[in-house]
Amino acid sequence: MAKAPEEEEHPVKAFGWAARDTSGVLSPFKFTRRFTKDEDVSFKILYCGICHTDLHFVKNDWGNSTYPLLPGKVQKYKVGDRVGVGGMVGACHTCESCENNLENYCPKMILTYNAVDHDGTKTYGGYSDHMVANERYIVRIPDNLPLDAAAPLLCAGITTYSPLRYFGLDKPGTKVGVVGLGGLGHVAVKFAKAFGAMVTVISTSPSKKQEAIEDLGADSFLVSSNQDEMQAAMGTLDGIIDTVSAVHALVPLLFLLKSHGKIIMVGAPEKPLELPVFPLIMGRKMVAGSCSGGMKETQEMINFAGKHNITPKIEVIPMDYVNTAMERLARADVKYRFVLDIGNTLKAA
Amino acid sequence: MAKAPEEEEHPVKAFGWAARDTSGVLSPFKFTRRFTKDEDVSFKILYCGICHTDLHFVKNDWGNSTYPLLPGKVQKYKVGDRVGVGGMVGACHTCESCENNLENYCPKMILTYNAVDHDGTKTYGGYSDHMVANERYIVRIPDNLPLDAAAPLLCAGITTYSPLRYFGLDKPGTKVGVVGLGGLGHVAVKFAKAFGAMVTVISTSPSKKQEAIEDLGADSFLVSSNQDEMQAAMGTLDGIIDTVSAVHALVPLLFLLKSHGKIIMVGAPEKPLELPVFPLIMGRKMVAGSCSGGMKETQEMINFAGKHNITPKIEVIPMDYVNTAMERLARADVKYRFVLDIGNTLKAA
Repeated sequence: MAKAPEEEEHPVKAFGWAARDTSGVLSPFKFTRRFTKDEDVSFKILYCGICHTDLHFVKNDWGNSTYPLLPGKVQKYKVGDRVGVGGMVGACHTCESCENNLENYCPKMILTYNAVDHDGTKTYGGYSDHMVANERYIVRIPDNLPLDAAAPLLCAGITTYSPLRYFGLDKPGTKVGVVGLGGLGHVAVKFAKAFGAMVTVISTSPSKKQEAIEDLGADSFLVSSNQDEMQAAMGTLDGIIDTVSAVHALVPLLFLLKSHGKIIMVGAPEKPLELPVFPLIMGRKMVAGSCSGGMKETQEMINFAGKHNITPKIEVIPMDYVNTAMERLARADVKYRFVLDIGNTLKAA
Repeated sequence: MAKAPEEEEHPVKAFGWAARDTSGVLSPFKFTRRFTKDEDVSFKILYCGICHTDLHFVKNDWGNSTYPLLPGKVQKYKVGDRVGVGGMVGACHTCESCENNLENYCPKMILTYNAVDHDGTKTYGGYSDHMVANERYIVRIPDNLPLDAAAPLLCAGITTYSPLRYFGLDKPGTKVGVVGLGGLGHVAVKFAKAFGAMVTVISTSPSKKQEAIEDLGADSFLVSSNQDEMQAAMGTLDGIIDTVSAVHALVPLLFLLKSHGKIIMVGAPEKPLELPVFPLIMGRKMVAGSCSGGMKETQEMINFAGKHNITPKIEVIPMDYVNTAMERLARADVKYRFVLDIGNTLKAA
């Protein structure tokens, strides 16, 4: 009798923390990973960022989680190399997207966790001791970037860098808005500033103004509920990176745009937003989405981050703090990314 | 005592048909136009297309109509020249849009009717015997295009030509969808075909299939309510020109797009559409709007139409048929544009 795919393909013992059900609580979990094959890299995980997507997946907010679920984009060493893996570990490598180094838009793209790998086994993420991944999905970390702070760049970094580049918001003097100052937003500000853009942060929280301007280097700050401020800024922006994953109004943002301006959504509200067509038409404006980036661009992004010393603000936490971190993340109580110190704190059960 | 702007600036008698209130009924109307100033052109109106926008304005659907309201983009002669005026007659000529030949996106753009002109007087459109307009807004009609059929090109033509060009859907082999086969849609099909695109018409009416393919040259036809057809066409289109001005679902259209595909709205539903963000993000797709085109591009468009013998399908009608035409237009009973035979049928009261 044939062995199940798990037994046949996954002979190497591994250990991590996984969610078992929609309660969202993670607990220690033993599983297996495959032997390295051609083009595979096996590595020890030292740090792993916690992304808001992880929270959505552990709670099955999008209805497609399968348990046990072990989240995490990772950060690791390979025989002296400083490398990382982001949100995906595979794709078809033959379609138009893959041929254009856009594996992230391949219809057969394989997520780093909660997905089915080429060999039929389930993918488990970086909340774990080690990992095996195809070399195409391995990113080399510049020597000057600390590994803990570099980890979230493979998620929040590429998610904001890629649309800034693709939608032409990477030119000096461009007027860029960033909606939401969280994990994604604060990195978007840093990249946009490094491109030479003039950056306006738009937030519901007046309390974030000082940090946006003094710490992150934003040029201006708008409180979205302040009609006077919003009115005064009408028609001033070339583009907006919208990082907010709660349902929110697009109209005020459309009015902030110049003609031919662009809103790029990188947060994913669960329900549809209201799209008023008149403001789109009258200024040839657009609302687009963007999802992560291809592996070539991810390497470019982290090289650029190294050159400009761009790292996210992080709070490094031990593995057994993960459930508290998830609770705090759910109420946006983190500046701005948790990073699990896997190397020092993940202990085999 | 100073004269009112109308008396001072508008000494030349003119005649046309105007709506007086939201009933939408037009009737004969005497008014005045200005003497020609520097850069002005005065001309006799021979033909005037009826646009769906006219219907919205006469009924005050958008809440900004002022009565009496005399609609119409026009088509006319000037001492032997064959010329036309589209949907606008003025702009600031100093802003970034104007400097880039995009007067249509100038914040101070002046519509051909229902607007306030530079001199403070009201603009009246082409449902009338003659007109005066700044030469910048005059388009020369190629000799091989009949004047009656060329008239709607200054509205439907530029409205569809411009987004096909701006959004890169003008390359041979591009897969272009056209939603709605009316005044705008059927011209969009003709331009897209002339650019060498493969054109798919998407319509709620199976009855339009034959005409779309045999008469207009579309390559394929999808009935939007036919799940099997829509499913089979998933991920096949580079872009879609959406001409439908009724509220409708974007999701099925987003699924027809390839990754990085674009929906461009040129019809303006009165209420917001539902925009699901996930499908946008997962394929880096976008929903944009486009409104007419600048004067330079309008001349390019009509030259291109002349070269490729592109004219809309029209039904030429006498002036006193205009109210019946409006009723038929409201129930989409026209293939595909009414054109008023002003020269032969508008009689002074």
